[in-house]
Amino acid sequence: MDPPPLWLMRQAGRFLPEYRALRAKAESFMHLAYDPRLASEATLQPIRRFGFDGAILFSDILVVPDALGRKVTFVEGEGPRLEPMLDAGGLKRLAGKIDLDRLRPVFEAIGRVKRDLPDACAMLGFCGAPWTVASYMIAGRGTPDLAPSRLFAYRHPEAFAELIDRLVDASILYLRAQFEAGAEAVQIFESFAGAIPRPYLEAWTLGPIRRIVEGVRADIPKARIIAFVKGGGLGPEQVAKATGANAVGVDWSVDPLGLAQGTTPLQGNLDPLALAAGGEAMERAVEHVLAGFGGVPHIFNLGHGIIPETPIENVERLVQLVRRRDPVAALRAAL
Amino acid sequence: MDPPPLWLMRQAGRFLPEYRALRAKAESFMHLAYDPRLASEATLQPIRRFGFDGAILFSDILVVPDALGRKVTFVEGEGPRLEPMLDAGGLKRLAGKIDLDRLRPVFEAIGRVKRDLPDACAMLGFCGAPWTVASYMIAGRGTPDLAPSRLFAYRHPEAFAELIDRLVDASILYLRAQFEAGAEAVQIFESFAGAIPRPYLEAWTLGPIRRIVEGVRADIPKARIIAFVKGGGLGPEQVAKATGANAVGVDWSVDPLGLAQGTTPLQGNLDPLALAAGGEAMERAVEHVLAGFGGVPHIFNLGHGIIPETPIENVERLVQLVRRRDPVAALRAAL
Repeated sequence: MDPPPLWLMRQAGRFLPEYRALRAKAESFMHLAYDPRLASEATLQPIRRFGFDGAILFSDILVVPDALGRKVTFVEGEGPRLEPMLDAGGLKRLAGKIDLDRLRPVFEAIGRVKRDLPDACAMLGFCGAPWTVASYMIAGRGTPDLAPSRLFAYRHPEAFAELIDRLVDASILYLRAQFEAGAEAVQIFESFAGAIPRPYLEAWTLGPIRRIVEGVRADIPKARIIAFVKGGGLGPEQVAKATGANAVGVDWSVDPLGLAQGTTPLQGNLDPLALAAGGEAMERAVEHVLAGFGGVPHIFNLGHGIIPETPIENVERLVQLVRRRDPVAALRAAL
Repeated sequence: MDPPPLWLMRQAGRFLPEYRALRAKAESFMHLAYDPRLASEATLQPIRRFGFDGAILFSDILVVPDALGRKVTFVEGEGPRLEPMLDAGGLKRLAGKIDLDRLRPVFEAIGRVKRDLPDACAMLGFCGAPWTVASYMIAGRGTPDLAPSRLFAYRHPEAFAELIDRLVDASILYLRAQFEAGAEAVQIFESFAGAIPRPYLEAWTLGPIRRIVEGVRADIPKARIIAFVKGGGLGPEQVAKATGANAVGVDWSVDPLGLAQGTTPLQGNLDPLALAAGGEAMERAVEHVLAGFGGVPHIFNLGHGIIPETPIENVERLVQLVRRRDPVAALRAAL
């Protein structure tokens, strides 16, 4: 059996010393994300080092609100900051349409990566799901329980629905432009489905993701889209059906054993903390993922983003473990 | 149909102005928790104001590590602080056995509450589940994703298992003493099952909760125990079966419609943010909970703790909504 293709969420980032060196050259995180030369270099770094099968664009989900006129900054060691939206009035200070000109450096970065990427490596773009992006816009920052956005949705249901609609429209245009720039597939990141009461899952995230998928496909019928939905308690077949995505990313909390019964390609789901821990726990967790997803097309990945503290040698070992099922590699290793 | 019994997680706390006045009299949160007069008063305040059917002891899950020799303090507006446990060495600085003498004020508070509680109101004790308590002990504070405790569990599996064992033993003694002091039922709070990879659910939380339930019942065969397990994706019947608890608390993310098919009494599960939001969203959410749990014995509660920002009038309205199904009350209201 061939080994599954392999890439890691947030593989272009802080766990790499060469990324930290690159970051030191840029004035801020957003400068790095908006500099095509630096952003393409950050995207390529993990490919050069580990030979992953997918290159995920170095960027951030918050470039979308930034291009809707809500300026985003990153506080070192803390995370993103935006002007919070405390009530429906915040919508008025949102641009009517996403400013794709402002995002031109992102598309240029994709073009640059494509030029230098090995043929065998897929170029992946992405955006955040509307609920996840809206949550940062409403709270003005990350929060542990997403209380501000749930409160906003309950108190201002119409304004909330309009915010989601605007993010759907913006995401369609943004992803479309990524495909035009050379992305071969894109991932929609929903990190916070677990912070949505089940009766609202359809309205707050599954429906909006589906509308993005449909909107992108209206222009690019063969657009390949991965939906990563963390939490929410739905099986991947349900997520695939509800969103229309081609493949579903599975978070680390899910047991992959017994999951792989449908036909949807699945991506995931090693616990990033097991990778950070290394040793026996990691070896066992990797085996569990490899065994668990057997039976459907599987893209090996983490079940959430790699954490900055992850030792490089653990990632090297992961690559070995995932690829040793390749009979040729095993033969070479044995000789 | 009689209205379901009603109490709210964290009902003794900061959303009440009379609590804030009481808190101002104590030097620190822990002083308040360890002063039988003040702690019993805090416990009784929401009963006097709202006539809830259950009085949950005013205390904190972290008195257990405190009584194991890991001093706990609370930073105003931020939360608890303990000396973190970075490696297996931290276990050595843990007392061999829980110091029930240190917790005597807690038991005395229960006795005082019992003296003043209306007969129709049940006295409820509680403790945290070992995984939840261990997570605070390891990180030394609350964290959004419990990364430190997952990392500890992967890196030091034996030390982690011993820490969980110690917390199981301590919790058995602690809950037993609460029953002896007059608690009629206790709740075990597992707030973070959602931060456990599914293959570890049994070892990290369900098994330890079951051992606490069994340990308490070894001395008090009729001990009534509610297991509140937030996240983890298990149905309440599975939680009841895995833990042996008499009743299961359901978190707010779960849709109660269709849940009530077993025989286990269920408690929950209004979203605390819907209560904080009030208005139409709250009315609809309350109706959904009332309708959803129809068919099994139901204890109306939130699906997590009430948040400090909750307006008093929303809680008053909640009490009305839950109790208006009482035909006698409806008749009285109509006359």
